[in-house]
Order: sequence, then structure tokens, then C-alpha cells
Amino acid sequence: MASKSFFAVVAGVGAGTGRSVAVRFAKAYPVVLLSRKPESYEDVVAEIKNSGGQAIGLTADVNDPASLKKAFETVKEQLPGSRLAAAIFNVNGGFSRKPFLELAANELDSAVDGTVKSFFHFAQQTLPLLLDSVADSPNPPSLIITGATASVRGSAYFGSFAAGKFALRALGQSLAREFGPRGVHVAHAIIDGVIDIPRTREYNVNNGAEDGKIQPDAIAETYWQLHAQHRSAFTQEIDIRPYVEKF
Amino acid sequence: MASKSFFAVVAGVGAGTGRSVAVRFAKAYPVVLLSRKPESYEDVVAEIKNSGGQAIGLTADVNDPASLKKAFETVKEQLPGSRLAAAIFNVNGGFSRKPFLELAANELDSAVDGTVKSFFHFAQQTLPLLLDSVADSPNPPSLIITGATASVRGSAYFGSFAAGKFALRALGQSLAREFGPRGVHVAHAIIDGVIDIPRTREYNVNNGAEDGKIQPDAIAETYWQLHAQHRSAFTQEIDIRPYVEKF
Amino acid sequence: MASKSFFAVVAGVGAGTGRSVAVRFAKAYPVVLLSRKPESYEDVVAEIKNSGGQAIGLTADVNDPASLKKAFETVKEQLPGSRLAAAIFNVNGGFSRKPFLELAANELDSAVDGTVKSFFHFAQQTLPLLLDSVADSPNPPSLIITGATASVRGSAYFGSFAAGKFALRALGQSLAREFGPRGVHVAHAIIDGVIDIPRTREYNVNNGAEDGKIQPDAIAETYWQLHAQHRSAFTQEIDIRPYVEKF
Amino acid sequence: MASKSFFAVVAGVGAGTGRSVAVRFAKAYPVVLLSRKPESYEDVVAEIKNSGGQAIGLTADVNDPASLKKAFETVKEQLPGSRLAAAIFNVNGGFSRKPFLELAANELDSAVDGTVKSFFHFAQQTLPLLLDSVADSPNPPSLIITGATASVRGSAYFGSFAAGKFALRALGQSLAREFGPRGVHVAHAIIDGVIDIPRTREYNVNNGAEDGKIQPDAIAETYWQLHAQHRSAFTQEIDIRPYVEKF
Repeated sequence: MASKSFFAVVAGVGAGTGRSVAVRFAKAYPVVLLSRKPESYEDVVAEIKNSGGQAIGLTADVNDPASLKKAFETVKEQLPGSRLAAAIFNVNGGFSRKPFLELAANELDSAVDGTVKSFFHFAQQTLPLLLDSVADSPNPPSLIITGATASVRGSAYFGSFAAGKFALRALGQSLAREFGPRGVHVAHAIIDGVIDIPRTREYNVNNGAEDGKIQPDAIAETYWQLHAQHRSAFTQEIDIRPYVEKF
Repeated sequence: MASKSFFAVVAGVGAGTGRSVAVRFAKAYPVVLLSRKPESYEDVVAEIKNSGGQAIGLTADVNDPASLKKAFETVKEQLPGSRLAAAIFNVNGGFSRKPFLELAANELDSAVDGTVKSFFHFAQQTLPLLLDSVADSPNPPSLIITGATASVRGSAYFGSFAAGKFALRALGQSLAREFGPRGVHVAHAIIDGVIDIPRTREYNVNNGAEDGKIQPDAIAETYWQLHAQHRSAFTQEIDIRPYVEKF
Repeated sequence: MASKSFFAVVAGVGAGTGRSVAVRFAKAYPVVLLSRKPESYEDVVAEIKNSGGQAIGLTADVNDPASLKKAFETVKEQLPGSRLAAAIFNVNGGFSRKPFLELAANELDSAVDGTVKSFFHFAQQTLPLLLDSVADSPNPPSLIITGATASVRGSAYFGSFAAGKFALRALGQSLAREFGPRGVHVAHAIIDGVIDIPRTREYNVNNGAEDGKIQPDAIAETYWQLHAQHRSAFTQEIDIRPYVEKF
Repeated sequence: MASKSFFAVVAGVGAGTGRSVAVRFAKAYPVVLLSRKPESYEDVVAEIKNSGGQAIGLTADVNDPASLKKAFETVKEQLPGSRLAAAIFNVNGGFSRKPFLELAANELDSAVDGTVKSFFHFAQQTLPLLLDSVADSPNPPSLIITGATASVRGSAYFGSFAAGKFALRALGQSLAREFGPRGVHVAHAIIDGVIDIPRTREYNVNNGAEDGKIQPDAIAETYWQLHAQHRSAFTQEIDIRPYVEKF
């Protein structure tokens, strides 16, 4: 017998946005964290549990439909009767900043496949589950996508990254138009700035201004507020950047 | 000696977005409501007071700088020491849906002046006050602008409306780039759908789908969440539409 | 009895784009040049006549419908039976690059009125004439609008300029959607760079690169090619910038 | 010793845009036509030769770098000393208009790989040749890309097509920013309408309006005019649609 309980899933969990989103959504739901390597989610799972939340870390390759399917079967076993309220796609494909004529084909593949093809598989797994929650999810079931400056702007040396991110936005926008009328909220966030994570600690951004890098917790809060929107007032696209960012 | 208290101001208050925004922000701040006619704000002021909030209704023509200045002087007297945390511009200029060759010059004037020139005066009055609050406002001081579908798309018969709304967006975007780095959050919301207000009650929208018109309270909640954003993660532009809306 | 001859009109003629457009269209049509001051068009009229073309310079204020109407009556007398094949709007409103809080209301007015309101009057005068030419104009009758970077991007200190240019684009786009199906080609050009004219001779642009400023003759050639497009393949918007321009 | 002669190459030749572009550019240059099947280019090659032009048809898979490389080696032998003046990418990937949940992974792959990955290989082959022509090509060497409505708009059931086209636009825009300053003109055309080709003869488009489908010759003429632009006035993006098209 199905309970009325709901869970959230986050694909692409590391020290930044993924972690913060998981922690934020864990205030309301059990959260499933998907990553290719356990070390990417282990700390976050522990952190959520320590705070009294419920979290499950699963090793999965989002770009491999069999691996992804298996992960969702495990979720079904571990959260019996629970249904999907929110799916957050926070995966980045490969990234090669270099002159176009030095770019290898597999670098383009990595950027494009790792972004739009991964999202394709993730969306195919999660949309049926989200549709299934429309009737009684506490908030409209949501599919939230992390984009970047390169989602709307191609730049010299960033062609492969932009190709993947533009394609991701295209697919997300198409899904919003297909699944919105069926009650699923598909939203795309353009993260336009450097995120404040361990890897970027040393970056000098915006002349070192205080809060010149995006706090991942602030992104997570905005994602939650997207999820909390009433279905008469869905946002499809939002930009997020530090107050000092040039744009 | 100035207290640390803060207030919000809403220009353009009627039965829809303006009312809801005032009610929502009144949960956190005393709210000043500006409208050309007392009957536009009287009920809202009473409603807020009845709920234990603080509200001041002022009759002012936002497109008349002297009238606007006088209103802010009255605010200073009635809320001594209080500083501005949020200014919401929700004014619509005139609107004439008609073939271009039948459009009179004063109809264009009304649409353009009533939108972008009103906003110019409102922004000139409020930005100095918002700058003054940067150091210790509980949330980053915010200037939030109500746009529409016509802010990003010109349509046949909607030329004058689109001209005003495009211009408003242009000025808002320019202010975001000028005042963002100084700590003021300037955000523009594209309201892409029919709002559910008394005047639209009879409209058949989106085949009469439930929640096919935008709940003004849902817009207000999104405006509040924009105001609540951390300064490392400002949104400059957001769209809002019903889940069933074609776009 | 009306002859089958056609003419072009250019509003906003100086030493740059206006001059080049007039010269280019004069290869095919008699050209009417409108400007507020005779000294703006006198040299161009002489130049066209010296090359064997036909040109008429008229002093008119495009933002004054009476003045504009009078100009078109003069055209009727001087070019009896000739009909309008192309109308080019190349007028700039006032321009004040300054901090928003130092901007005077009349500076906004000048930028907005001088741009979108002037265009409104120009379009109301020319569209009936263009419609009248649809059946037998050698090329689809065209209304071509000069835009700028600020037509699609608001910037700090450029708010008033952007407001006028966004509004102009909005109205042009609306007219394209209304008059395109009736056979009139409404096109908007985003001139994204410094134009090479006497006034900009000393500007150091794009590190002084050769051809780093836009040749006005190159703009004029592109306008002509827009006018020459087949009606099954109209361009509504085009950008134009030097090869070395950052964008 | 290299001669001063130049050629053009068109990838993706069938009965529509590709044929017209080849015929148009053949007025100025020998043209190389690339297609996977000889039957796609044989008639066009014959047509060009019959008109006194020079054309070479080569069977090649644009998405296979080895096949593409071999084709350009053949060109070198057949047009010794000739250099590349214009490269037109007119390839469409697969296209599956269907509900997202019925879309197979290989349908997405086909749409994305056949578009952006093919373009990647084509651009890597042609850009070095185009750079080599900068100094003395009669017109700035050009790389022109055929886009579609789906290049800027995702739609329900068109997600895979849009993903490929958005990605293509992203890469093209990135290349414009990288190679523009080096003298190569990279332009992207948004073909927003049904093209009038044998396959679409029966389609009822725009209520059967005359010229309601895009004439491929009109697209070709616009591509030529892009190629002919002066380097001080490059267009990066242009839209093309029938006068009666809704947009």
C-alpha cells in the first residue's frame, strides 16, 4: 500500500550546488544523491543524517540508462511507497577551455554527451515518476536544471561547453512546454558567476569583493523556492549572479 | 535618532498584483501604497491593518515627480526614522489594442509615458533611499519591476504596449547593472499570462483550466523570494506563467 | 494618371548611415531626405545629383506629425505619381551617458520621444504609402529601422538611450507582425559598433584595428539587400558589427 | 606555386537550400558539394556545369573526420592551388517529432551528433583553410550555418531537434567570437518556415498563401549577401521567414 510520502533526487553531487541542494531539500523530503563516485556524496549523506534528515547515496552514471534504472530500483526498495516530488539535474559534462582548432572530438563529445545526453536519461527516468505525483504532491512536482552563462552565450574557447549547455536548455525548455500542462514544473537556472566552493577558493573573482562568488546555499534556496511555486505561477527560467558580477 | 526599522513601498495598487504584494510585504514591513485614487488602496490598507500589519495609503501620481516627492515626504513624517527596504513598481500605462494606423499619438504617449517615465520618477525617488539601506537592511534593498509578455515580444496591435514595456525593461536592466554592484537588487518579472482578478473573472483563459490564470498571491510570493535572495545570488529576470499557458 | 515610378525616403540624414543609405538607394530610386536642418542634407543631395541620381532634401521634424505630413505633401508635388518603395528610419533621439541619479527627466524624454515617438509618426505616414505599393513595387516595400547595441542590452549609464532603442525595436517588431502578412517588409538592424564618420574619426576603437569602425556604406549595402529580399524570405532582424568587435 | 583562385564548399546538398546555395555560389566560384549519397548531388553538379559553372560532387560523411579529410584531399587534387572562400554547413541531423517519453536514446544521438558533431568536424576541416584565405580572398572568407526555428526555441515533441540546433548555434556563435577577429566571417541563419522543396509540395502552409513557403533560391541569395559583407560590417545572425509566417 503506497504511503503519501515523497522524496527528492539530486544528480551531480559534489562540494557545491549539489551538496547545498540536497541539504536544503532534505529539510522537506528524504533525498537521494546520485554520483559516479561514493566520495562525492558520502559526506553530504552523513551531514544530512546528522541533522536529522534522511539521505541515500547511490553510485550511478547518469549517462548510462541501465545504471540509472538500477539506482531508481534501489530507491524503490529503500523508500517503499515513496514518490518523487523533485528531481534536480546538476551534472556537468567535461569542460575544455581551449582554441577550437586544438579541441579533440572526444572533448566535444564529453561536453555534449555528459550534459544533454545525461539529462535525457535522467529526464526519462524521472518524468514518469513526477507525473505520477502530480495529483497529490505537496508542491508541484519539479524538474530543475542547472545551467550556466554558457547556456545563453557562446564564447571564444568555450564552444564545446556552450554546445552542451545550449542543448540542455533546449531540451529543458521543450520539456517545460510538454510537461507543464500536465502539472510538472520544469525550470532552468542560469548560474552566471563563479560558485564559492573549495576548488574556487583561490580564484580572484570580481576584484575579491565580499560575496563576489555565489554561495551554493543561496542557489539551493532559490531552487527550493522554484519548487514551492504555485502551479498558476511557474517560472521557467531564472538567472542567478553575484551583485557585483558584470553581465 | 534613526531607528533601524524598514518599510516597503508599492506603486500601482489595485485588486491584483499590487494588493497581493502589499499584503505579502506587510508581513515583514510597514507598507506604503501609492495610487492615483484612494479607492485603489483603501481596502488593501484596511485589510493589512485588520491582519495586524501596518499600511499607509497615499494618493500620488507616479508620473509626476512633485506628487511623488510629496508622498515620500509624508512617509518620512509618518514613519520617522524608517528606511526603505523594498520598492515595487507595478504601474501600467495606458493600453490600446488596435490596428497601428488607428492608433492616436496620445495613446502611444499614454502607454510609453505611463510606463517608462513613471518608472523613471519612481526609481529616482527610491534608489537614493535604497542605497541608504544597503549597509543594514535585513534583506538586500530591492527594486522590483512588473513586466509582461510584451516586455520581450512585440505583437500586432500591441505596439504601444510593447514599446512601454520594452523601455521599462531596458531601464530596469540598466539600473541593475549600475546599482547591483552598489548593493541594490533590481529585478524584473515577466508576467506571462492573465492574472486572476475581478476584472478578468469572466475571461476564458487556457480553456478554463483550473489555475489557468495567475494567482496574484503567487506573484507576490515570488517577489518576496526575490527580495529575500542573498546578494551573492541575485536574480535579474524571471518569468511567471500558469502551468497550462502556451509560450 | 499615376506612373509606375517609385521613390525612397530616409529620415535622419547626416554624415554617416543616413548619407550612405540615401546614396545607395538613389542608384534605384529618387530619394527624399528628411532632416531638421538643411545643412544635414544639402551636401548629400548635391552628391546624389552630381552622380546622376535624383534627390530631394526637405526640412522636417520627424517628431512633429504636422511637419512630417507637410513634407510628404511636398513630395507628392515634386514627384507626382511616384509611390513609396522604401522608408528608412535612421533617427537618433537625444543621448545622455550619465549616472542615473544625475539624469534629468527631459533627458529621458528626449531619448524616448526622439526615438520611438518620432518613429511612430514616421511609420504612420509611410505605412499607408508602402501598403499602396505592395502590388507592383519592384522589391517588396520596406520599412527599415536603425537600432543599436542598446536595442537589446541595457547598460549602466545608458538607461535612457536603451529605453528609447528597446521601445523602437518593440514597435518595429509589432509592425513586422502586423504589416508583414500584408506584404510590407519591416526590418530592424542592430548596429553594434562605432560607425566611421567625421565625428568618430579620433575615437580609438578596437585598438585602432583597420576596419575596426563600421563603414556606413557597408550598412547601406546591407539595408539595400534587406530591401531586395524576396517576400518568401524576409529578415526581421539582423546584427552588424566590425569583425574585431567584442560582443 | 599557388594561384589566386578560390572555391566554395557546401555540406548537405539535396533538392532545397543546399542545391540553391551551390548554384548561387557557383556564379562566383567552383563549388564542391558534399553528401553521403551521390544521388543527392549528381543533378546539381550537372545543372551547374550546364550553366557554365564548375562543380565537384564528393561522397562524404560529414560526421566522420576521416571521410571528410579524404574529401578535402580530393579537392586539393582536383582544384590545385585553389583556396577556400566560403564553407556552408547545411546538414540536418535526424529528426523525431514525438512525445519525449517515447523518444529513444539513439534518436537524440542522431539529432545531436548529426548536427553539432558534424559541424564540429566540418569547422575543423574548413577553418584552417578559411584562415589561409583571409589575406586575399575577394570577399571575407565565410563559414555560414543553416539553423531553424528550433535554434532559438524548444517546443513540445521537438526536444531532440532543438537540442541539436541550439548546440549548433552555440558552437557557431563561439567560433564567430574566436575567428571573427582573425578575419573569418561566421554567420548563422535562422530559417523560420517551411522551405519550398519537392518533399513539402503537398504541405498546406500559411493557408496556402502564395510565397508562403521559403524559396530556397531566396535563402541562397541571402547567404551570398552575407558572404559579400565588408569586414567592418559582419552579420552574425539573421532570421529568414515568409512574409505571412506567424512568429
